[in-house]
Amino acid sequence: MTAHSATLALDEAVRARLNEGEDVLHLGFGEAGLPVAPELIEVLADAGRHNGYGPVAGAPQARAAAAGWFTRRGLATEPEQILFAPGSKPLLFALLAAVEGDVVLPCPAWVSYAAQSALLGRRVIWVPVSSEAGGVPDPERLTQALRRSSSSGARPGVLILTVPDNPTGTVAPPEQVEAVCAIADRHGLAVISDEIYSELCHRGAAPSPARYLPERTVVTTGLSKSLALGGWRIGYARTPLGGWGRRVHEELIGVASEIWSSLAAPMQAVADHVLGDPPEITARIAASRRLHARVATAVHARLTAAGALCRPPQAGFYLYPDFARRCEFLRSQGILTGTDLAATLLDRYGVATLPGRAFGEPDTALTLRLATSLLYGTTRRECERALAVEEPENLPWIAASLTRLGDAVEAVVGAHHRS
Amino acid sequence: MTAHSATLALDEAVRARLNEGEDVLHLGFGEAGLPVAPELIEVLADAGRHNGYGPVAGAPQARAAAAGWFTRRGLATEPEQILFAPGSKPLLFALLAAVEGDVVLPCPAWVSYAAQSALLGRRVIWVPVSSEAGGVPDPERLTQALRRSSSSGARPGVLILTVPDNPTGTVAPPEQVEAVCAIADRHGLAVISDEIYSELCHRGAAPSPARYLPERTVVTTGLSKSLALGGWRIGYARTPLGGWGRRVHEELIGVASEIWSSLAAPMQAVADHVLGDPPEITARIAASRRLHARVATAVHARLTAAGALCRPPQAGFYLYPDFARRCEFLRSQGILTGTDLAATLLDRYGVATLPGRAFGEPDTALTLRLATSLLYGTTRRECERALAVEEPENLPWIAASLTRLGDAVEAVVGAHHRS
Repeated sequence: MTAHSATLALDEAVRARLNEGEDVLHLGFGEAGLPVAPELIEVLADAGRHNGYGPVAGAPQARAAAAGWFTRRGLATEPEQILFAPGSKPLLFALLAAVEGDVVLPCPAWVSYAAQSALLGRRVIWVPVSSEAGGVPDPERLTQALRRSSSSGARPGVLILTVPDNPTGTVAPPEQVEAVCAIADRHGLAVISDEIYSELCHRGAAPSPARYLPERTVVTTGLSKSLALGGWRIGYARTPLGGWGRRVHEELIGVASEIWSSLAAPMQAVADHVLGDPPEITARIAASRRLHARVATAVHARLTAAGALCRPPQAGFYLYPDFARRCEFLRSQGILTGTDLAATLLDRYGVATLPGRAFGEPDTALTLRLATSLLYGTTRRECERALAVEEPENLPWIAASLTRLGDAVEAVVGAHHRS
Repeated sequence: MTAHSATLALDEAVRARLNEGEDVLHLGFGEAGLPVAPELIEVLADAGRHNGYGPVAGAPQARAAAAGWFTRRGLATEPEQILFAPGSKPLLFALLAAVEGDVVLPCPAWVSYAAQSALLGRRVIWVPVSSEAGGVPDPERLTQALRRSSSSGARPGVLILTVPDNPTGTVAPPEQVEAVCAIADRHGLAVISDEIYSELCHRGAAPSPARYLPERTVVTTGLSKSLALGGWRIGYARTPLGGWGRRVHEELIGVASEIWSSLAAPMQAVADHVLGDPPEITARIAASRRLHARVATAVHARLTAAGALCRPPQAGFYLYPDFARRCEFLRSQGILTGTDLAATLLDRYGVATLPGRAFGEPDTALTLRLATSLLYGTTRRECERALAVEEPENLPWIAASLTRLGDAVEAVVGAHHRS
C-alpha cells in the first residue's frame, strides 16, 4: 500500500478545514505561497499553440536554456545533459528506477524519497544528519552505516542529498558535502542531489555535490520553489558528462518515455524563458528569497523562545524545531511523540505542522517541520505587499500569525513568556 | 534497461531528419496532427494565475466536469471516482503499480503497456486479437492462455483492453468485449480500459468494458487524441464504485502523490472547460473525427490495393496492414521481418512506420502500424483547411502524400498498378 504523501495529504486536509470556515494556520505544506510573476502568465499564454509531444528530454531551446542556467552558476553544462519533466518528483522517481541498489538517505529527509524507494522495492538506509545542518548525512555516521549495511546484506547504490535542505531549511557546509561525496566515491555510490531550493539560499550559494563528485552526481531541480510554480509542475535534471552519466541519461529517457512522455510543451516555453535569467525574474526571485528569510527568521526566534532547539534558517522556508528539552512537561500532558505534538497543535490551536516521523525519524523524536511560506497573506495583494516591503514580518497579517504561532507553541510546550 | 519508447524514439528520429531537410512521410507517430482549438489557447491563458499544487486527484471543479462527461456518455460517475494526471500514460503506470498480478495484453497492443509492466517487474501474457478487431484478446484464446498461465506459475491479475484500439484503428464489437469481461470476471482479473480514442469512433460509440464489468474496470483517457493536445499532457481516470474501486482509487492517490503530485493547475482548467462539452469543442472533435476517418479510409484503400490484409479503420487514425500475402516477393528482396519492411520503406522511400514487433508481435509478422494523422498538412492553415473541407483526401498536399505512400508500398511489396 502506497500512502498518500504526508505533505500533500495534510495540505488537502487543511484546505478542507479552511473551506469549511475553520481558522487554521497552515505551516504543513511546502508551497512557496506567492502569486505567479505576472510576466510568466503572458509567457504561458503565448505558448498555447505548442501542442506537440516533442522530444522526451525537452525541446532543444529549453534544454539549451537550462544548460546555460547551470553554466552561469558554475557548473559547465551541455544541452545534452538536461532532461525536463512534470516536476522534479517524477525525475527523482525515474532516477531511482535508473540507478541500481539500495538508497541511502539523510535523516530527516523529504517525505517522498523513501516512499519512491519502497515503490521500486529498494531498501532505505537512514543516516542521521549533523547538528549543524540537514540534507547531508553526518560523514562519520555515513561511513559506519555503509560498513554495517554491507555486512547485513544491503546493497547501497545511491545516496540522495538535499542541498539546501527540506525539512531543516539549512545548507550543508561545503566541507561536509565534500566529505560525504568522497565517501560516496569510495563506496561506488551514485549521488542524486535535490537542489530545488538552490535559488533560495538566504545568503550565498549552496555547495552542489556535482562539484565534488562530478562524474557520478545527478542534479534535480525545478521552478516550484524559486518562482512559486508548484502547480505548474516544471522540473529538470542535469546528468553528468562521461560514460556513466550518458548511460543514466539514456535510461532516464527510457523510463520517462514510458511513464510521462514529456513535460507539457507550454510549460517548456515557461522554463525556456525563466532559465535565461531575465532581469524581472532575477528580481522576483531575489524578493522572494528575502521574504522567505525574514519570515523564517522571525518564526525561528519564536520557536527558540519557546524552548526549542532549532537550526537557524539558511535557505527556503522551513524550520525543524526539536522540543526534546520540553519532554517532561509534554509527557505530563500526555504528549509522548512528535505525532502527538503535531496533533495537539492542530486540534487545540489550529496550527498545522508535520511531525518528524513523516521525514524518517522515530516518532519518539519531538520534532516538527514548519513551512513558513503560507503566512504571507491570503490574497494576491497581501502577498505582493509582503514581497515589496522592508520588514514583512511587521505587516499586520503576518505579525498576527507570528504571535498566534508563538503563543500556541508556548502553550503546548509549557514555556512561559519572559517579556 | 528501459528502452526509449518505440513511438517516441521514431518520432524524434524522423523530426531530426526533417530538420536536416530530408523529405520524410511521417506515419510513425500517434500525434493527432492538428492545431489547438483557438478557444483553448484562451482558456489556458486565463488559467495562468493558478499556481498551487492542489489536490492530487485534481481540483473539485475539474473532477466534477469529468464525472459529468462520463455520465453524459452513459457511465454514471461521481467526482470522487475521477483522478487527473499529466497524461493517461502515468495513470496506466500508476494503475499497474496499484493492482497486483501479471499483466494480460492483447497482441498487438500499444507499445507502453509491456514496457510499464517490465518496469514494475510484472510478467506479460500476450493473447492474440481476433481477425475482426484489435484491442481485445480473442475470447477463446484468452481462456486457453489463462488456463496455461496458471499451470505455468504466472499469476494473471490485470487485463488491459484498448477500446477503440491503437495500433489497429478498430473497435472491438460489444459481444466480444462482453465475452472478455465475463472471462476476466471468472478469473478474478481487474480490467484497465484504455479509452483515449473513444471520442474518435468514426461511427457510433465504443463499448466500454466498464459496462460489462462495472465493479472491476478502471477507465483511462485524456485529451491528447480528441483535441490534438498530446503536448499538453492531460489525462484522467475513472475508478469504479464499490470497495475494490475505492481501494484502487486510494492506492492510485498514493502512487500519484509520490510520482507526480498533480496535473498542472492550468491544464486542469483546460480539462474543466473541455469536459463540460461546450458546443465549439463538440464541433471541433466532430470535424477531427471526420477528417481522421476520411484519410484513414483513403490510406486503407491504397494498402489493400497493394495486397495487404488490413482491418478497415473504425476509429482514430491508425491502420495495421499485414503483408503476409507478399512474403515470397519480400523474401526475394531480403525482407524477412516487419523490421526489415519498415526499414526498407524508410530508407528507400522516406516513409516512416513502425513494425508489429513494437506492439508485441514476433518480428516474423510482416505487419506495420501506420498513423495517418501527420498527413494533414505542415502548416496551421493547411490543417484547418483539412478540417473544414468535404473531401480532405483530395486536397493537393494530402492527395500527394497518399500517392507517394501508395507507390512506395507497392514498390516495396512488389504489387503492380492494376487500372
